[in-house]
Amino acid sequence: MPFSHIDETGRLTMVDVGEKPITDRTATASGVVLMRPETVAAIRARTTPKGDPLEAARLAGILAAKQTDRLIPLCHTLPLAYVNVELTLAADHILITATARARASTGVEMEALTAVSVAALTLFDMCKAIDRTMRITDIQVRSKTGGASDWPASE
Amino acid sequence: MPFSHIDETGRLTMVDVGEKPITDRTATASGVVLMRPETVAAIRARTTPKGDPLEAARLAGILAAKQTDRLIPLCHTLPLAYVNVELTLAADHILITATARARASTGVEMEALTAVSVAALTLFDMCKAIDRTMRITDIQVRSKTGGASDWPASE
Amino acid sequence: MPFSHIDETGRLTMVDVGEKPITDRTATASGVVLMRPETVAAIRARTTPKGDPLEAARLAGILAAKQTDRLIPLCHTLPLAYVNVELTLAADHILITATARARASTGVEMEALTAVSVAALTLFDMCKAIDRTMRITDIQVRSKTGGASDWPASE
Amino acid sequence: MPFSHIDETGRLTMVDVGEKPITDRTATASGVVLMRPETVAAIRARTTPKGDPLEAARLAGILAAKQTDRLIPLCHTLPLAYVNVELTLAADHILITATARARASTGVEMEALTAVSVAALTLFDMCKAIDRTMRITDIQVRSKTGGASDWPASE
Amino acid sequence: MPFSHIDETGRLTMVDVGEKPITDRTATASGVVLMRPETVAAIRARTTPKGDPLEAARLAGILAAKQTDRLIPLCHTLPLAYVNVELTLAADHILITATARARASTGVEMEALTAVSVAALTLFDMCKAIDRTMRITDIQVRSKTGGASDWPASE
Amino acid sequence: MPFSHIDETGRLTMVDVGEKPITDRTATASGVVLMRPETVAAIRARTTPKGDPLEAARLAGILAAKQTDRLIPLCHTLPLAYVNVELTLAADHILITATARARASTGVEMEALTAVSVAALTLFDMCKAIDRTMRITDIQVRSKTGGASDWPASE
Repeated sequence: MPFSHIDETGRLTMVDVGEKPITDRTATASGVVLMRPETVAAIRARTTPKGDPLEAARLAGILAAKQTDRLIPLCHTLPLAYVNVELTLAADHILITATARARASTGVEMEALTAVSVAALTLFDMCKAIDRTMRITDIQVRSKTGGASDWPASE
Repeated sequence: MPFSHIDETGRLTMVDVGEKPITDRTATASGVVLMRPETVAAIRARTTPKGDPLEAARLAGILAAKQTDRLIPLCHTLPLAYVNVELTLAADHILITATARARASTGVEMEALTAVSVAALTLFDMCKAIDRTMRITDIQVRSKTGGASDWPASE
Repeated sequence: MPFSHIDETGRLTMVDVGEKPITDRTATASGVVLMRPETVAAIRARTTPKGDPLEAARLAGILAAKQTDRLIPLCHTLPLAYVNVELTLAADHILITATARARASTGVEMEALTAVSVAALTLFDMCKAIDRTMRITDIQVRSKTGGASDWPASE
Repeated sequence: MPFSHIDETGRLTMVDVGEKPITDRTATASGVVLMRPETVAAIRARTTPKGDPLEAARLAGILAAKQTDRLIPLCHTLPLAYVNVELTLAADHILITATARARASTGVEMEALTAVSVAALTLFDMCKAIDRTMRITDIQVRSKTGGASDWPASE
Repeated sequence: MPFSHIDETGRLTMVDVGEKPITDRTATASGVVLMRPETVAAIRARTTPKGDPLEAARLAGILAAKQTDRLIPLCHTLPLAYVNVELTLAADHILITATARARASTGVEMEALTAVSVAALTLFDMCKAIDRTMRITDIQVRSKTGGASDWPASE
Repeated sequence: MPFSHIDETGRLTMVDVGEKPITDRTATASGVVLMRPETVAAIRARTTPKGDPLEAARLAGILAAKQTDRLIPLCHTLPLAYVNVELTLAADHILITATARARASTGVEMEALTAVSVAALTLFDMCKAIDRTMRITDIQVRSKTGGASDWPASE
C-alpha cells in the first residue's frame, strides 16, 4: 500500500493537549546579537540611524510572542499572561532575555524563543546600515516551569 | 524644551525608499541549529514525534519571509518573487540557508534572515520533546546583490 | 552605568496578569464620524459608491476587536465571548457604539475601542469619495465592569 | 424611522457565548479534491513540481484552523487543543479529513471546515501546473460533540 | 547519502517569478453552497440568526483574497487591483463567483479560489444554526487571462 | 425577483484600480488624544506605568499602516515606501501626525489614518491606568498628493 507509507512517514501532527491539566507555565529563553563595539556605543548614545533599537526590539519581541502559533506551525494558541524582553548591552554584543507566562496545558518556551528571535532580528534590522558584521547566536531555553518536568537553567 | 529631546532622541523612523530605484534584489542568509547526534539521526530516520521537521521548517520559513514586514517594525512590504529554504544535515547540527529575491527599492536580507530564524524555531519546536540541548546559532547574512553595494560572502 | 538608564527609563513592559482572578469582563466604547448631511442621506438611501458602509463597518469592527492584541503592542490576547458594533445615524454624523465581553483576568476596553476605531475608519473609507469633510471624533470608553473598579458611564 | 429598518434587518451580530458552559468540543469535517489519475500518481511518486503537496496541505490546514476567527467574521477565538489533517489518496481524488478539539463554549466545526478548505486550496495550488481539471468538492461536517446536540456522521 | 534523498524528494519550493514579465492578470473562480430551500428562503427574507450572510460572505471573501499568500504556503504576495465576490441565489444553493485582478508576474487564480472558499465558509457559519445539511461543492477556476496560456471557461 | 434587490442594493464592491496610472502618492493625517495635564507630565517625565507611550505609539502606528488592507475591508494592498508618525505634546493633549507614501494607483490616506488611529489607541492603552478621562478626537486627513485632485490642508 504505497500511499500509507507516504502519508505516515514523517507525517505532521499537532500534539493533542485536550487531556492535559492546565497549570501555570513559565519559560525563559535567551540569545545574543554579536556586533562591533562601535555599534554598541552608537546604541548607547542613541545615534543609530532608524531610532532606538532597544525599544523597537522589546516591542517587536512582545508582539511576536503573541503570534507564535501562526509562525510555528504545530504550536498551540496560548493566552499569554505576560511576556517580557530584557536587553543587556555588553562590550561587543547585546544579550536578549525573554520570559513568557500562561495558564495553559502546554509549555511556553516557544513563545519565549520567538520573542528572543524577533527581538534579535529587529536589532539587526535597525543596526545593519552601520554594521555588516552582526550575527545572531546562542538562542536557547534557560528555564521552564509548570510542566511534567521543570528545567533548571541549563548551564 | 524637554519634550523635543524625548521625541527626537532615538526616535523610530522608517527609511523613505520612495526615491530609490527599483532593482532586482537578492540575499542569502544562514543559521545553524545545534543538536545531539541522536536527534539528527531521528530526523534522518523520520522518527521525530511530531512529523518531518525538515518539511515543516521549510514551509514555516517561506511563510515567515512573506510576513517580515509585520514582524520587524521598520521593514518595508516587499513583493517577494522567490524564497527558498535549504536544510543540510551534519553530524551534530542542521545548517539552514535561505534565499530571497524581489524587484524592490530596498534589500531583502531581513526576509532571508526571517526565513532562517523561523525555520530554526520550527526545527526546535519539532525536536524539543527528544532533545533539550538544542541551540540556534550563527544566524547571519551570507551575500546580497542589487543594492548600492553588493556583499561577497562574509567569510 | 549609562546603559541601565537607557534600558530602564520608559522601558516597555507588559503587565503580568498571571495572578489576577478570571472574571466576567465587559466594556462599552463609542465614537462619532462627523459627515455632511448629504452623506448620511446617501448611506440611508444605500447609494454610496462602494456598497453599504454600515454592514462593512460592523464587520470590520468585530474582526478588528479579535485582533486587538496584534495591533496594540502591550494588550493581552483575550478569548472574546462577544463583540457587538451598533451604528446610529444622526443628521450630520454616525454614532458608533461597541461592546466587548470576555472571561478574562484583564479588562476588555481596548477591544471595544479598537472595534469603534476600525468601524470608523471603514465608514470613512467607504464614504471618502463623496465627502472630504469627514472627521472621526470622541472615541472614548463609556462603561466597564468586572475589574477592581467598575466605571459608570462617564457623562 | 427609516434608519432602524436599515440597521436592524440583516444586521451582523456575533453570538454571545459568555453564559454558555465550557465543555470539551470536537468536530470532524471532510472534503474532496477531484483530479486526474495521473495527478494522483505524480503525488504518490512525489514528482509534482513544487514539492510534496501532502505535507504542505496538512501544515497549511493546521495553520489555517488556528486563524479561523480572523477569516470567518463572526467566529469566536478558540484555544484549539488539537487539529489534525488526514489525506487519503484514491484513484481520481484526494479525501481530506480534519479534526479539531477545544475546551470552549462554542463548537469547533468551523475550525475543522477551515482546515479542510485551506488544505484543499494548497493541494490545488501545488498541482495546478500539471492538472487544470481539479475541483474542490463535498466539504461538509461529519460529526460534532460537546454541544447541546451531538451530530452523528451525516450519512 | 541518505539525507539528500530525504531533502530532495518532495522538497517544497516556491517558483521563482523574478524573470517573468509583469502583465495584467485576471482569474474567475466559482463554487456552490448546497442548502435546504428553507435556508435560501431565510436568506432572501433576511431572517437568518446572525445577520445578512450575503454581505458577510462578500466581505470575508474579499479580505481573504488579500491574505492568500499567508494561507497558501507557496503563493506569491500579489498587489491585487480588484477582487469581487458575486452571490446568486437558486432554489437549493448559492452560487459564489469571485474575480481577481492584478498586474503581476504570476496568475491570480488562487486569490479567486480563496475568495470563493472563505465566502462559502462564511455562508456556512452564518446559516449552520438553521441548516445541518449544507455542503460546499464545485470550487473551480472558470477562466484566467494574462499568463502564457489563457483558459476559456472550462465547461 | 426579490433576490436581485437584496444583492444589488448596498452591495460591497472593491474599486478596480487596474487601469489607473501608478503615481507617487502621499497623504498626511492627524488626530488628538485629549488627556489630563498630569498625564502629559507623566509621559514627559517617562513615569507612565507600562513604559514610554511615545515610542510604542510610533511603532504601533507604523506597523498598523502596513496592515491597512487587512483591517479596512475594501482597501487595496499597497507597497508603502514610507510611514512616519510624529507626536507633539501640548498642555492637555498629544497631537499625532502620520504621513504615508507609496508608488500606487490609489491613494494612501487610509494608511495615514490607520497609523494615527492605532497610535492613538496605543497611547490610550499605555496611559489608561492613570487617566480615565482620555478621548481620541479629530482624526482627519490633512493633505493628499498624487491622485486626480490634490488636497490642500483642510483648514
